[in-house]
Amino acid sequence: MANSPSGESVTDRIVRVLDTFDTDRTLQTATQIGRRAGLPSSTAHRIVDDLVSAGLLERDDDHRVRLGLRLWELALRGSAALRLRQAALPHMERVQARIHEHTQLAVLEQDEALFLERLSSPESGANITRIAGRLPLHASSSGLVLLAYAPAELQERVLAAPLKRLSADTITDAAALRRALADVRRLGHVVAPGTIQAVSTGVAVPVRDSSGTVVAALSVVLPREAAPEPALDALLAAARGIRAALDPLPPG
Amino acid sequence: MANSPSGESVTDRIVRVLDTFDTDRTLQTATQIGRRAGLPSSTAHRIVDDLVSAGLLERDDDHRVRLGLRLWELALRGSAALRLRQAALPHMERVQARIHEHTQLAVLEQDEALFLERLSSPESGANITRIAGRLPLHASSSGLVLLAYAPAELQERVLAAPLKRLSADTITDAAALRRALADVRRLGHVVAPGTIQAVSTGVAVPVRDSSGTVVAALSVVLPREAAPEPALDALLAAARGIRAALDPLPPG
Repeated sequence: MANSPSGESVTDRIVRVLDTFDTDRTLQTATQIGRRAGLPSSTAHRIVDDLVSAGLLERDDDHRVRLGLRLWELALRGSAALRLRQAALPHMERVQARIHEHTQLAVLEQDEALFLERLSSPESGANITRIAGRLPLHASSSGLVLLAYAPAELQERVLAAPLKRLSADTITDAAALRRALADVRRLGHVVAPGTIQAVSTGVAVPVRDSSGTVVAALSVVLPREAAPEPALDALLAAARGIRAALDPLPPG
Repeated sequence: MANSPSGESVTDRIVRVLDTFDTDRTLQTATQIGRRAGLPSSTAHRIVDDLVSAGLLERDDDHRVRLGLRLWELALRGSAALRLRQAALPHMERVQARIHEHTQLAVLEQDEALFLERLSSPESGANITRIAGRLPLHASSSGLVLLAYAPAELQERVLAAPLKRLSADTITDAAALRRALADVRRLGHVVAPGTIQAVSTGVAVPVRDSSGTVVAALSVVLPREAAPEPALDALLAAARGIRAALDPLPPG
């Protein structure tokens, strides 16, 4: 409906506008948004005005806009992600209390690992993960778990594409990645030293729902030299707890 | 842009569609959405198709749709709510570990208290709050704190409107509410027994940013008979911790 000459819908253009916001860019003018979204300035101004009227953006005194709480509310209130995250949070807190390192929950989204939650404490080490941030499947411990249990079609697509190097230890060879995924399935976990950052080791396990389907990956990021076993024990216990908490979905 | 004959923008209609989803209704057909949103079925189907193409909704095998992770990601990644919530979470965990009851963070949004976060444990008592849920300002302990420090104009608007009764102890008289708000400002906290549910007492304190502005309310929900002092001590310590964690916002 109401498509532009390029065939793009208004919805697509709204997404392009919202997509210009991120952790480091929470406040922008309509002109900046248009430039970043690749939209004509007049179009960007009209969409921003509509989004402000609807409460999805909020305007400050300097005519800059930020993402509105109304958008946050609409996105979360009826979301399956919120349900998974709520089931996982008490168990993540237990992991965090035992291991004192970043504890994170990721799901598969558009061929990447999308992080739904991260618990940290001031003493936790280096970690590039952000809530609502993404990491490549082949490079992160969470991603390796999600990929290992993903549909074969998705695995082949990732294996056929170039595997970008994020650090000296990132797996960039398709045959090696195939072996690593088989190891994840055989062991039921992964310990990935240095695949993202040389100073860190990711430890991740699958989280299954009540039917046994893998719905998420639970991970901790340890200093490179730390022994992974205590983290692994805590993660496996947490994954069992989350599975028990995930009752079958009620009919919609 | 692309307004309907009623003058409503496409954005407004998208919001109406997204607004039909909630915790109890996470999976719907386009027909159900149209009925709930008050939109013609053909319009609802077109908007749903556009939202699915853009990834904001996801379709299952039965042609039902749910909120997409892409929407969640767009709403959170650049959001000030996420920043506040991340600053607050470690301190909320400390309250939760000490008090073992629901611990929640609320902000003022469109004349209501909107709950950004809630931590619970299995032993926590009754509580009707939900993440991304709302409660009236005059009836919840969080709402009373938010209202007490809100702009005078908003206070007068709430005081002038009918004050809905949620339980036998809800304040429904404007003069009594005005006194309660003055008490909150004088004491710096509120203890509200039974204003929402007869079995519970809400205890809430203001959360200030580094400039001293009240940006949120932090609360716990106790069983009605519990002494409020330990919860109040924990909340005040947490509010101080959050204030210290909320550095001034970087320029956008």
